[in-house]
Amino acid sequence: MQLWYTEDQTDNVKFSMKVKKHLFSEKSEFQQVDVFDTHEFGRLLTIDGLVMVTEKDEFIYHDMITHVAMATNLDIKNVLVIGAGDGGTVRELTRYKSIEKIDMVEIDELVVTASKEYLPITACKLDDPRVNLYFEDGLKFVEGKENIYDLIIVDSTDPIGPGEGLFTTKFYTDCYNALTEKGILINQNESPYYSENAREMSRAHKKIKNIFPIAKAYQYHMPTYPSGHWLFGFASKQLDPIKDLDKEKWNSLGIKTKYYNTDIHVGAFALPTYVKEMLEDESI
Amino acid sequence: MQLWYTEDQTDNVKFSMKVKKHLFSEKSEFQQVDVFDTHEFGRLLTIDGLVMVTEKDEFIYHDMITHVAMATNLDIKNVLVIGAGDGGTVRELTRYKSIEKIDMVEIDELVVTASKEYLPITACKLDDPRVNLYFEDGLKFVEGKENIYDLIIVDSTDPIGPGEGLFTTKFYTDCYNALTEKGILINQNESPYYSENAREMSRAHKKIKNIFPIAKAYQYHMPTYPSGHWLFGFASKQLDPIKDLDKEKWNSLGIKTKYYNTDIHVGAFALPTYVKEMLEDESI
Repeated sequence: MQLWYTEDQTDNVKFSMKVKKHLFSEKSEFQQVDVFDTHEFGRLLTIDGLVMVTEKDEFIYHDMITHVAMATNLDIKNVLVIGAGDGGTVRELTRYKSIEKIDMVEIDELVVTASKEYLPITACKLDDPRVNLYFEDGLKFVEGKENIYDLIIVDSTDPIGPGEGLFTTKFYTDCYNALTEKGILINQNESPYYSENAREMSRAHKKIKNIFPIAKAYQYHMPTYPSGHWLFGFASKQLDPIKDLDKEKWNSLGIKTKYYNTDIHVGAFALPTYVKEMLEDESI
Repeated sequence: MQLWYTEDQTDNVKFSMKVKKHLFSEKSEFQQVDVFDTHEFGRLLTIDGLVMVTEKDEFIYHDMITHVAMATNLDIKNVLVIGAGDGGTVRELTRYKSIEKIDMVEIDELVVTASKEYLPITACKLDDPRVNLYFEDGLKFVEGKENIYDLIIVDSTDPIGPGEGLFTTKFYTDCYNALTEKGILINQNESPYYSENAREMSRAHKKIKNIFPIAKAYQYHMPTYPSGHWLFGFASKQLDPIKDLDKEKWNSLGIKTKYYNTDIHVGAFALPTYVKEMLEDESI
């Protein structure tokens, strides 16, 4: 017998992983959560049938969602993480001794429960004393907050289901207000390649660009996401991810990473021409 | 009825594209050549059941295999292209008026025949008067040649079947000898992500590094290749792809590209830490 997990990456493209065992399957009030053990990627967490995290490539995503902002401002002390139920983003953040407080707001406790049980590789630092875990709607959590966080990371699913509100102008404005003077917003910014992802990528960037004086996007290779070409957004009130990067200082910390380094920090902001054009296109 | 093309990217990973029509299928003395019309990617050329080119993403591959070398040395006049039967590499090269001669050596005439018929998007410049088409073994073609080409592009399949010899020390040494003083070698350098590709990536780079004083690798996002994370090698006798890049001069040519630009030229050489370590690992 063979068991395969197949994701419809578009109506006309499928990506399949051979499965050893279906380890977990439960439906919360928000979404369907599953964990599989796969031959190629190790453990795989899916939400509503879409790949969120695999053991084999989670380091790419979590390196790039945290270290770019941190290396731009090593004085970051208070962090808000929205989503990120698997715990990988928090794991990377806890490597910085300088960080004093991490508020993590995940709408769906089931994602955290499943990750703690089946993905200790990512969920291993959720009990760090600096971490405060809130099972709430990130949208409401950030509303009305002012000048509190040095960094907000929006580690969301696609803009469907519970993740939808995290792609709105209202939410990005609330994030702006919740950030300190040197605050940075990092957001999951979709992908340029397949048309549906590309539309969301452009829309999210456009909204953020209208709120933050500095708004850029950077790319990384994520093999288990559709097309493997994925972006994060970097927005801030005054810090520039290239000009304010202090390579020497970050490297002096001795944080060992498998994907991120201070060269790829810069390189990742160099986008293909078609992606730049999509991000600048005002008609989308 | 639904028709799907499925590639086994590893024993445990499959990538599938929905097919409108199977347009062409023929076996040469070297390999099986097929052309499909797909919903997502337009026309698709496969060799021995592996994706070579699709209409949707060929621009990424062909931009990156040609313009990085050209922008490093705009005095390139004589070019040798090995493989590249679909014609896309030659198409990009013919955009440079400064190039005087392009020798293209493809072992399998059937690939060119099929591409001319079904992939005019890539094969459209094979009749440029500067192009000399040889249906020969590239390995033998380059043997004994000295100080002739300013640029050699090895646009090969994976190192199995007819492409195998194009990954040997003997071949890379012959390329070195065939190059002029400022000569550049660009080679299809596989991928770091899945272990089989990664081994070939490291091996090819190691061999080239032992022959050329300058040997680097640069990456690009190729959605229809396994993992989407793919590399080219850049080797040369004296030119450095970053230091010798003349951004202004290349941009003054007005060559419009969809993926390549002089920022991504530099950014593409910034590799993830695990890739750098694999390329430097002497034990592989």
